[in-house]
Amino acid sequence: MQSINNTQTSRPHTHGRLIINARVASLDPTHTQPYGMLDNHAVLIGDDKIMWVGPSSEVNPKQFEGNLIDAAGRLLTPGLIDSHTHLIYGGNRAQEFEARQQGQSYEQIARAGGGILSTVRATRELYQSGLIEQALPRLTALCREGVTTVEIKSGYGLTLDDELKMLRAARQLEQLLPVRIRTTLLAAHAVPPEYRDNADGYIDMICQQLMPKVVEEGLADAVDVFCESIAFSPAQCRRVFEAAKQHGLGIKGHTEQLSNLGGSALAAEFGAWSVDHLEYLDDDGIKAMRSAGTVACLLPGAFYFLKETQMPPIEALRQAGVPMALASDCNPGSSPLASLRLMMNQGCVLFGLTPEEALTGVTRHAAKALGLSRQVGMIRPGQQADLLLWDLDHPAQLAYEFGPDRLALRIFNGQPASIHHAQHSLSSLASHG
Amino acid sequence: MQSINNTQTSRPHTHGRLIINARVASLDPTHTQPYGMLDNHAVLIGDDKIMWVGPSSEVNPKQFEGNLIDAAGRLLTPGLIDSHTHLIYGGNRAQEFEARQQGQSYEQIARAGGGILSTVRATRELYQSGLIEQALPRLTALCREGVTTVEIKSGYGLTLDDELKMLRAARQLEQLLPVRIRTTLLAAHAVPPEYRDNADGYIDMICQQLMPKVVEEGLADAVDVFCESIAFSPAQCRRVFEAAKQHGLGIKGHTEQLSNLGGSALAAEFGAWSVDHLEYLDDDGIKAMRSAGTVACLLPGAFYFLKETQMPPIEALRQAGVPMALASDCNPGSSPLASLRLMMNQGCVLFGLTPEEALTGVTRHAAKALGLSRQVGMIRPGQQADLLLWDLDHPAQLAYEFGPDRLALRIFNGQPASIHHAQHSLSSLASHG
Ligand SMILES: [Zn+2]
Ligand SMILES: [Zn+2]
Repeated sequence: MQSINNTQTSRPHTHGRLIINARVASLDPTHTQPYGMLDNHAVLIGDDKIMWVGPSSEVNPKQFEGNLIDAAGRLLTPGLIDSHTHLIYGGNRAQEFEARQQGQSYEQIARAGGGILSTVRATRELYQSGLIEQALPRLTALCREGVTTVEIKSGYGLTLDDELKMLRAARQLEQLLPVRIRTTLLAAHAVPPEYRDNADGYIDMICQQLMPKVVEEGLADAVDVFCESIAFSPAQCRRVFEAAKQHGLGIKGHTEQLSNLGGSALAAEFGAWSVDHLEYLDDDGIKAMRSAGTVACLLPGAFYFLKETQMPPIEALRQAGVPMALASDCNPGSSPLASLRLMMNQGCVLFGLTPEEALTGVTRHAAKALGLSRQVGMIRPGQQADLLLWDLDHPAQLAYEFGPDRLALRIFNGQPASIHHAQHSLSSLASHG
Repeated sequence: MQSINNTQTSRPHTHGRLIINARVASLDPTHTQPYGMLDNHAVLIGDDKIMWVGPSSEVNPKQFEGNLIDAAGRLLTPGLIDSHTHLIYGGNRAQEFEARQQGQSYEQIARAGGGILSTVRATRELYQSGLIEQALPRLTALCREGVTTVEIKSGYGLTLDDELKMLRAARQLEQLLPVRIRTTLLAAHAVPPEYRDNADGYIDMICQQLMPKVVEEGLADAVDVFCESIAFSPAQCRRVFEAAKQHGLGIKGHTEQLSNLGGSALAAEFGAWSVDHLEYLDDDGIKAMRSAGTVACLLPGAFYFLKETQMPPIEALRQAGVPMALASDCNPGSSPLASLRLMMNQGCVLFGLTPEEALTGVTRHAAKALGLSRQVGMIRPGQQADLLLWDLDHPAQLAYEFGPDRLALRIFNGQPASIHHAQHSLSSLASHG
């Protein structure tokens, strides 16, 4: 795992910044209240990190004149983390969606040039700058909701150059918005047309040419595979994981989405950070995940959009104590939904999560799914100061309600960093300080 | 029906305002392309109305210097219409939602003071100003998405004074945001505790005291009832409809949501503008609606949030040619979702609508559900100039994608009227003009 490079976004603050009178949903499990709740607490930020968390009564606000934020009882949470996205792609599949709603079959759509390969074509056609331009409205939407860390996968290039182009575009997005980007090499997303009858040859290319180049340029934090009969076999996935392990990259998997091939247990064998989707996960998979400390990343948006009926084994995961993350899976084919707040609501309504599980799934557990447990996901001294102040009383409202903008203040790496319309609320808050 | 009072929002423009080079999704059925599409068209706005729609080549842009908007090929649609909301209420039911997700039954929640009566209590406790304050973030969210007309129901007051308070709050919202509000008296939403064993006495109060007062103050455009075994019987609903008819108010109904009591046919008998929900609607109901020209208003948010499995009879409605509207039903108990764009997506994914049906359901058919067919819902000369310019190519994208802000310009009653963050796009557009 590579270290986080925040030098562009953090400015030194000698005196620190203090938030007082907050209802702190710390998500820190060392605090035993639901949500790790700490009422009427203060948070001290030094530079880009959380320095101290304690009762408001223990600090003297006068020492922080000009750098004081009076939360006035508002809810404070860690920044949200979207731990599984395909934000970067060319074009869209709206007309394919329209054809499907008009009654055309997947086969008819594929024959007409639709499906994932249409996105691959559109992605290959764009320069890096074009990919960035098309991804920005999606990333902006996430940031406006309070997302401060986003994982982005490659996987629509499927050639050496086009996969590198996607990862470079993803890395560059970090310069354009106040957000932390983690990148994942998902070259093993689909068999490209050039390798139609030679998937093993494509795996060779990934392991022998692409991955070394990715590592050399520092373009990816992890490697992912799509383990499914329509994509890659467990044996092919194993080869990708072995290469990733040698390069010291994190391991992730798209597993057990449409059938049970044992991909989750395989990924866990390699110490995977997360396995994702999991509608067909079985008990052996859950056992392997528990042993390895692998996160179950649930993607209700794809379940919803594909009208799936097979539910992931939520209760079994809960009983086994496997941490569950929730992510958008934002992609043009199966989840064109750039909203993590919507996923929190869908996680509850469609998968039966509690609001606390939903919030934990987009904070502490999402951080674990990205190998970032020590950096983000909680309000705890030593973590990066990614903090959200909400015009809300209770954290359950974050999963319950959808639509209104309740974000009063967004702090990224210690700095108030609003995205467009949040600036209005920010200026009204500043007058309290 | 009362006339629309726009005097606060429209300023006279002697020369008119011209939009050129737009892909106009007119939703006007006299144009036979899907979506009533008119490529490379221009729209002339005079004062608050659409004056002319025709090919860009037929106008001279130089005559409109300073009042010219070059759409540069962007998609132009009518303003969106949310034809069924309960936007005004006190409090929220997030902790009830949390209890439900933790496994508590409806009975346990009701015994603990939850359910609709908890919202009634919270609504009664607030002054009109408090209700407005709590509704504003929800209304703002809808406006930011491109909604220009919103229906708001009473129904959480359930006393003479509290129902009047809700309707006055709804009317006042029109002064605070650039949006057209239509109000509906839904006193027959639930039997209030004061009339627990005397629902007929409550209906007497509605018909003999409340409705005359509402008419006297001009507080409602229509009357609505909840026809269900847990609410009011068809006989009770008939009395409300009869009184509404005598007062010349529009008729609407919450019907066939949880069972089939024949409420839709009953409402149609009174020439209802719409009947809403309709999961248990039967063929007799559909026939009555077709004869009366009553709109079927579908509410996928409540279907989703309540985890319903009984689908409204979409295909039968389609075959019968009954117009289908789509609305948010935004309310704290069964649809805490203030997003009409999300409803368009859910209408397709959950109910099998096409993207064109979804867009028609929040424009032309939604207007009909509010008795506003001649005023709004299409891009056609004579209609109010409520227009949306989108950073999109194809109208199917409006139902397919969710999250990114694609609204480049929002025009209400002929005036560009952005809501907070839309202003950024507006200023960048203005430099084209
Ligand atoms: Zn994915
Ligand atoms: Zn309703």
